[in-house]
Amino acid sequence: MDIQQRLTAMERLVEIGIMLTAETKLDRLLDNIISEARSLLNVDGATIYLIHNDGLRFQNTQSASLETRMGSETFQSKVAPHVVPLTRDSMVGYVALEGEAEVVNDVRSIDPKKPYRWSDSFDVAMGYRTKCLLTLPLKLNDGKILGVLQLVNAASGAFDEAMLPVARSLASTASAALGNAQLADALREARLDTVMRLGMCAEYRDKETSAHIHRMAHISALLARKLLLSEVFCDNLLLAAPMHDVGKIGIPDAILQKPGPLTDAEWEVMKTHTLIGGKLLSGTDDVVMALSVEVALSHHEKWNGAGYPYGKKGEEIPLSGRIVAVADVFDALMSKRCYKEAFTLSQVKEIMFEGQGQHFQPGFVDLLFDNIDDVLALYTKYKDTHDERELFSG
Amino acid sequence: MDIQQRLTAMERLVEIGIMLTAETKLDRLLDNIISEARSLLNVDGATIYLIHNDGLRFQNTQSASLETRMGSETFQSKVAPHVVPLTRDSMVGYVALEGEAEVVNDVRSIDPKKPYRWSDSFDVAMGYRTKCLLTLPLKLNDGKILGVLQLVNAASGAFDEAMLPVARSLASTASAALGNAQLADALREARLDTVMRLGMCAEYRDKETSAHIHRMAHISALLARKLLLSEVFCDNLLLAAPMHDVGKIGIPDAILQKPGPLTDAEWEVMKTHTLIGGKLLSGTDDVVMALSVEVALSHHEKWNGAGYPYGKKGEEIPLSGRIVAVADVFDALMSKRCYKEAFTLSQVKEIMFEGQGQHFQPGFVDLLFDNIDDVLALYTKYKDTHDERELFSG
Repeated sequence: MDIQQRLTAMERLVEIGIMLTAETKLDRLLDNIISEARSLLNVDGATIYLIHNDGLRFQNTQSASLETRMGSETFQSKVAPHVVPLTRDSMVGYVALEGEAEVVNDVRSIDPKKPYRWSDSFDVAMGYRTKCLLTLPLKLNDGKILGVLQLVNAASGAFDEAMLPVARSLASTASAALGNAQLADALREARLDTVMRLGMCAEYRDKETSAHIHRMAHISALLARKLLLSEVFCDNLLLAAPMHDVGKIGIPDAILQKPGPLTDAEWEVMKTHTLIGGKLLSGTDDVVMALSVEVALSHHEKWNGAGYPYGKKGEEIPLSGRIVAVADVFDALMSKRCYKEAFTLSQVKEIMFEGQGQHFQPGFVDLLFDNIDDVLALYTKYKDTHDERELFSG
Repeated sequence: MDIQQRLTAMERLVEIGIMLTAETKLDRLLDNIISEARSLLNVDGATIYLIHNDGLRFQNTQSASLETRMGSETFQSKVAPHVVPLTRDSMVGYVALEGEAEVVNDVRSIDPKKPYRWSDSFDVAMGYRTKCLLTLPLKLNDGKILGVLQLVNAASGAFDEAMLPVARSLASTASAALGNAQLADALREARLDTVMRLGMCAEYRDKETSAHIHRMAHISALLARKLLLSEVFCDNLLLAAPMHDVGKIGIPDAILQKPGPLTDAEWEVMKTHTLIGGKLLSGTDDVVMALSVEVALSHHEKWNGAGYPYGKKGEEIPLSGRIVAVADVFDALMSKRCYKEAFTLSQVKEIMFEGQGQHFQPGFVDLLFDNIDDVLALYTKYKDTHDERELFSG
């Protein structure tokens, strides 16, 4: 590499740094890091492993030659998710533990003094021929190791020393962006956890489980995605939906926990949970909180105008409320409550379709049942546990 | 700038990018951007303005010569916070609107065709002589303008064309880091808002105001800072403290809202709000939620062992609980409740000092009153508003 090539590489690296820093969604970031590494360093393939618990979890990979030969989708389906133990027995484990880059220009004749061995299982499974590997630690400035970036088969046939400074800088730049995206992810997760708990606390006196909150929120977000609404709206709806019933906090025990049917007067009090929720959630200009106010106020409105609190009809009802209404009622029907057993799926289907065009927007129930496999998967993921029922029954 | 200098600058820029990306606290980041800009581009001073509502808010500034002459603290105290209107009348406004860098090598003879004028007010106030200015937009890759970075007085006497690419790259790198820090800030703010609401919802039936939640949380964090605990712990305590009483959700109306004194049996039920809170908040390995469990379980313990639910004493009680106990009781005494008027500050002081060494850890009440001005400032910031009292009385 001459000085002009180094300058070009560094200028490109500054651009890459700017681009990577702007990407805070982890999965897209990992793909971007790999693409940029492949193009900047001119290699056939690259893989990222991230430290997770005590292992290195295989995350993302790309291979120019294999993706050309078998198609990108087939290739991606063949690479099985796996975890490499964090020990010196493998090259990636060694690099993660040592924190220094490792160059191997012929994997079939690794220095026998090195503690790691190379396995040909990937080559055998894929019909590939790995020749040289450059394995770089993904390390933050404070020394924390996040994972490993492994580059496979340099176009020039070998990794020469002159490439190392550029490769190291790329790995550091990628690591800083990665640390950032992981922080943003952790903050998003933490917020999601907090709104789920807020929803769960609100339903505590009503003997709802936190599984209901999780399911209705994820079903709402699923429907929003199927309606091709923006990623931001879908993400925000997932955060806003759990808070739809916080207003129940304002309903007296005598009404909320009454075993028999409510009188008309009691029912009027019960309906105010929508308005109380709207008040409890208002007052911040944050977009998620604003959406949660909308949802709290509108999730009991009906398409035909027969809902509450305002009796809005059709598109007067905010889209968020129209979506959440479907998810909330569906999960209520599917679930066992203190006053009823769960319905069967075919009973639920019948009831929901009766409501389509009356209670629910035309087409929304179709959409739900067109995607029923995805919806039912949430029932495996978020089960009402015995422990929780105990907690929630006092 | 020859090619070797450009390579050196670009290599330095990659380092700067990595360092800036790792800093997600906004104020420190702004200072770092300015320091790096000054050293990389060899200028006497630099200032950042950020877009806020419809103006450019002056944020951070540094000046080598003025800070040397008058001392850094004096200089910083003399630069008043201000907002520049987002119009083409000023150089910073012009650059923010145009989105392109602007070089002026003699501020006293600006091209009269330019819409902006230069004002000598800073020079007059500070006894400074501004000669040349390089004003750069802080712009994200998607074109969004975050603010402006203005560099003052190049050491070489003027800003030459060759510096511009490096300056632009620095501004882009800084902008990406800034966008990130603003995202992290927004996510942190959103989380704080959500936990405050969770606390507020939990206290709704108890007729507490959200101002109580805000004050007790901020007093807790203040005490933690004065105890020289880590920044991370203080930040986490601010987030955990608002949830200390979520377990009240599990206490029946008949006990929680009983007008007269509780019977012994009722009191035993009331005490379980600590345990219910612990259960409602447990189950996530997030560090803030773990701390909130600790606080929920321990904020009614007393230093002498006479508290509940476990009757722990002294340092058996988690530090978080010992801190929150002081903040929670102090605010309760300072506030009007449905069953009592607010005490005067001197009455509160007397009661709190009686509790020191009994209810509260020795020294903690001293610490509170040693910082009483900071504590009372929170009562100006978070007042019980009339609106809220109405909301909270149903």
